[in-house]
Amino acid sequence: MLPGPTQVPERILKAMSKPMINHRGAEFEKLYAKIAEGLKYLFQTQKNDVYPLTASGTGGVECVALNVVEKGDKVIVPTNGEFSERLAEAFEKAGADLVNPKFELGTPIDPNVVEEALNDNKDAKIVAFVYNETACGVRNPAEEIVKIAKEHDALIIVDAISNLGGDNLYMDKWNVDAVITGSQKCLACPPGLSFISLSEDCWNKVEKSKKEKETIYFDLLKIKEFHKKNETPFTPAVPLLYALQEALKMLKEEGIEKRIKRHADCAKSMREGLKSLGLKPFPKDEKFASNTVTASFGPQGVPVADMIKKLLEDTGIVIAGGMGETKGKIFRVGTMGAVTQNEVNLTLNGIRSVLTKLGAKPRKP
Amino acid sequence: MLPGPTQVPERILKAMSKPMINHRGAEFEKLYAKIAEGLKYLFQTQKNDVYPLTASGTGGVECVALNVVEKGDKVIVPTNGEFSERLAEAFEKAGADLVNPKFELGTPIDPNVVEEALNDNKDAKIVAFVYNETACGVRNPAEEIVKIAKEHDALIIVDAISNLGGDNLYMDKWNVDAVITGSQKCLACPPGLSFISLSEDCWNKVEKSKKEKETIYFDLLKIKEFHKKNETPFTPAVPLLYALQEALKMLKEEGIEKRIKRHADCAKSMREGLKSLGLKPFPKDEKFASNTVTASFGPQGVPVADMIKKLLEDTGIVIAGGMGETKGKIFRVGTMGAVTQNEVNLTLNGIRSVLTKLGAKPRKP
Repeated sequence: MLPGPTQVPERILKAMSKPMINHRGAEFEKLYAKIAEGLKYLFQTQKNDVYPLTASGTGGVECVALNVVEKGDKVIVPTNGEFSERLAEAFEKAGADLVNPKFELGTPIDPNVVEEALNDNKDAKIVAFVYNETACGVRNPAEEIVKIAKEHDALIIVDAISNLGGDNLYMDKWNVDAVITGSQKCLACPPGLSFISLSEDCWNKVEKSKKEKETIYFDLLKIKEFHKKNETPFTPAVPLLYALQEALKMLKEEGIEKRIKRHADCAKSMREGLKSLGLKPFPKDEKFASNTVTASFGPQGVPVADMIKKLLEDTGIVIAGGMGETKGKIFRVGTMGAVTQNEVNLTLNGIRSVLTKLGAKPRKP
Repeated sequence: MLPGPTQVPERILKAMSKPMINHRGAEFEKLYAKIAEGLKYLFQTQKNDVYPLTASGTGGVECVALNVVEKGDKVIVPTNGEFSERLAEAFEKAGADLVNPKFELGTPIDPNVVEEALNDNKDAKIVAFVYNETACGVRNPAEEIVKIAKEHDALIIVDAISNLGGDNLYMDKWNVDAVITGSQKCLACPPGLSFISLSEDCWNKVEKSKKEKETIYFDLLKIKEFHKKNETPFTPAVPLLYALQEALKMLKEEGIEKRIKRHADCAKSMREGLKSLGLKPFPKDEKFASNTVTASFGPQGVPVADMIKKLLEDTGIVIAGGMGETKGKIFRVGTMGAVTQNEVNLTLNGIRSVLTKLGAKPRKP
């Protein structure tokens, strides 16, 4: 029950055992074309292509930042946790002049503050943010932020690594300029791949920013060129693409709207269940609670590390602790990928039993 | 029979179907520690650690170049084919002032020319070369080049992507400063991982070159820091690490010396066999013929693409064509990974039958 990597269904695991194929041959081209089509459904775009990279989500973020940013570009990156800070770092390293409104951990990004930043920085070309901050289980108000950025003629880049497929994001309808996600989250694929898609405006910016980049591996223009012939510029992780093909098939079978609802329902049950155990999940406002990861303060009187450890020992269920400043203070439970009410219930029962055994006291509501 | 990715043995394919584990948990640490140990055997080093990256070989090359080079460093990269040119490009993009002695495709790097370059460029800090040029089946005289670089106090970086484990390279004994390889070649693993190792001198250079790099994903100091706790900084491709663990086990079972000999024997049989079919493998001097890929001019009177296509149709055996300027002129047959005399014979029989059917004339010896 981690906030990614998630449990991978048997069907997807099995798909990886197929024999290798030549990544410069006709069979690969067919595989690639199918995947490219399935990814467009995941990204809810007909207009833009989606590119699979052999790299983690952070690699996907770096790829977009390196290719879009021209040295000195003003980029607004609001942050409210570990992963949005990593996003900000990637833009800074890519040469951006960073504008960085900070929000307290556990607090969502305020779209009004983004608007102020845009008004104060008329030359800002790009706004980038993390939709679902996995470090604290906060779902930022993506649609509003996208709208504001577009009203100010800025490119809008959404890091949806931990919730694409598990929460609503309509690349075409919302008019998003770049979306990044990873394989090991709501798709229930193994880790190792990230996926990115860029709008036409964003591609124009990439062309314009075409300067001496340090990267060959993340050269988007090369990736685009090879995509046209259903290939990747460098040897791809073929077994992970087999897994992805199966995962995209499962997504299509379920339907993306149903999958999003399943994620929302599971997260809601998890939050309610934790509250009923006397725990204190956050954020305060349910509206900003993530569909894919529920974060909560630990029980009173019991170190959170002990709770996590005991849960693993007694039940085999793995949940995560906090990251950075929340380490030792909070725990995080994922509800992503192939998750169902059944796993939610098992986890809640496990936590209840562990809290009793460890003699935890319920927190004051 | 491609020069990578190669056929993956059933044992390794099956290893990928194991359930996912948390890459921040104890089980992963054990897996990582085992892999790290096995990779040291592959690299023939006790002194240096080896790091697995979720990226293709090109990603591994880029990682080393970005971290080692400080803007303006003079770097000597002799080239004799597509992959050594890519190596040169990676160093140039990383900010190197490139010295680039060129050798004709199919001709090995001449160590004397490397020595001249070092004498002409007393300030050259690094020599980097491709050991086994996959584009033309040439095995460069690695030990000599390494020796010369060390005599001139330059760091020596070896791209052994397509022959580590299939040809001799002793990182400690030869005193090599950095070695890069990939998963999908002599290890017979699926593609998607690369492995790198650096000497203490090389790490000192990385520390010294620690400046504003564009990269987070390929930040070697971060990779080193996480390696100490048997982790990777970003989510790794867990199924590929399962496969790698099994492949390293198979390497240990066979023994690296035996595996190298098997590669050498298979390549020799392939060369001899092609000659006996009236074909003309190169390079002229057997001493420089690769252990892992045999390149040859196509048959007379038959387009090489037709031969490759017919071989696939009739026998299911996949071989490769030329790259870049040799496209349509040469073909390339891999003898790497799990290859045995049996596959060599099947391939030669297949080629013989295809040449007869297509009415090829033997080339003049």
